[in-house]
Amino acid sequence: MTQPTLAVVLSSGGLDSTTVLAMAAANGYELHSLSFFYGQRHHCELRAAETVAAAMGVKTHRVARIDLQSIGGSALTDDIAVPKDRRRDPVDDGIPVTYVPARNTIFLSYALAWAEVLGAWDIFIGVNAVDYSGYPDCRPEYIQAFETLANLATKAAVEDKGRFRIHTPLIDLTKAQIIRAGTALGVDYQMTHSCYDPDPSDLACGRCDSCRLRKRGFSEAGLADPTRYTPGQHITS
Amino acid sequence: MTQPTLAVVLSSGGLDSTTVLAMAAANGYELHSLSFFYGQRHHCELRAAETVAAAMGVKTHRVARIDLQSIGGSALTDDIAVPKDRRRDPVDDGIPVTYVPARNTIFLSYALAWAEVLGAWDIFIGVNAVDYSGYPDCRPEYIQAFETLANLATKAAVEDKGRFRIHTPLIDLTKAQIIRAGTALGVDYQMTHSCYDPDPSDLACGRCDSCRLRKRGFSEAGLADPTRYTPGQHITS
Repeated sequence: MTQPTLAVVLSSGGLDSTTVLAMAAANGYELHSLSFFYGQRHHCELRAAETVAAAMGVKTHRVARIDLQSIGGSALTDDIAVPKDRRRDPVDDGIPVTYVPARNTIFLSYALAWAEVLGAWDIFIGVNAVDYSGYPDCRPEYIQAFETLANLATKAAVEDKGRFRIHTPLIDLTKAQIIRAGTALGVDYQMTHSCYDPDPSDLACGRCDSCRLRKRGFSEAGLADPTRYTPGQHITS
Repeated sequence: MTQPTLAVVLSSGGLDSTTVLAMAAANGYELHSLSFFYGQRHHCELRAAETVAAAMGVKTHRVARIDLQSIGGSALTDDIAVPKDRRRDPVDDGIPVTYVPARNTIFLSYALAWAEVLGAWDIFIGVNAVDYSGYPDCRPEYIQAFETLANLATKAAVEDKGRFRIHTPLIDLTKAQIIRAGTALGVDYQMTHSCYDPDPSDLACGRCDSCRLRKRGFSEAGLADPTRYTPGQHITS
């Protein structure tokens, strides 16, 4: 019997990372998914991540509790309002207040640590440089710099046992292409959560950048949007 | 009145990072120190870090509680014995079990996040490539890679407001040189804690790699070692 190839997949319970899980599974990786509780106001995404892990046959799913609130500086963790119905396109409007300082660097650092402990060399992250919100830590040059760092940072790499790779299968896809690819792989997007500012019943607001990109993606993909929105928010886009 | 230049300094309460604080202060930086509770068995170092912060005139000191125990893989966080009285020199003996996977990457990521929120561009870390324990994330090429990453990862850098710098003033110094430099700047090393495996009264074991390097440093510097060791451990080296 051959040993499975292990992958650590950053999973937020959202549309993008769930598609990444499906892609890694389709490529034969044994999945180990990692989520973070970092004081985000939309922490219901963690329940979505657990549901996703169970549905996708993830071998181990971990939630690391990390302290980003004491650092602050973002609408996702601070008392800063999440922007709604922004007049400009979320894709063209610069870096928004929902940017969390160094978030992907922190997430990837943990993924790297866990990968080293598990003996995995492959780390997957659902960053996307097309239909994205302007976050600097979603760009290919950033990912390349992290991969370089990973192979200098670790005992496993320095002892020349292998080479870490940061996989970003969504990086050149539009949201519509992501949704089509995931749908083709059998992903049920109803179990995923993308909204930054859900209502008390965890229904999506339909108006934040994340909801707007998601809605537009389903629309452009020509697929029904299974997202559960706060009543009255399903139609607008 | 000119604005002070802010520095984020990673502070473990140990000998090296306390010397770094003194050096940054001597260079006129306003100090903001960051420590981590990561489930380390030697968490009494956090009390030392608080004492140090108060003594060194640090403007803000933060302790981020982060979850490395769930990742495991190190004698500092797991049920793996801390090596004592190793026959070979700690400096020449490869990467030891006290290595914590990706620890400096995680620490620097948090420092970067906090620096961005504070508006600081200068991050100090007390890594050392001479009298060190063989950790890959203490080498100059690793630090350089992190600096490159920092300037791609962040909103502040991408919007071209400045450039992050990772300062490693100890990187080329021996432990004896570090101790001499700190002593010249008035550091009282009695308030610092280096031992990986202190006794229940928080006295240093005198036998782990960290204690042995520290002892040898004082000896080579020709200075009295103010460390409080478990009785009977002061003489051996």
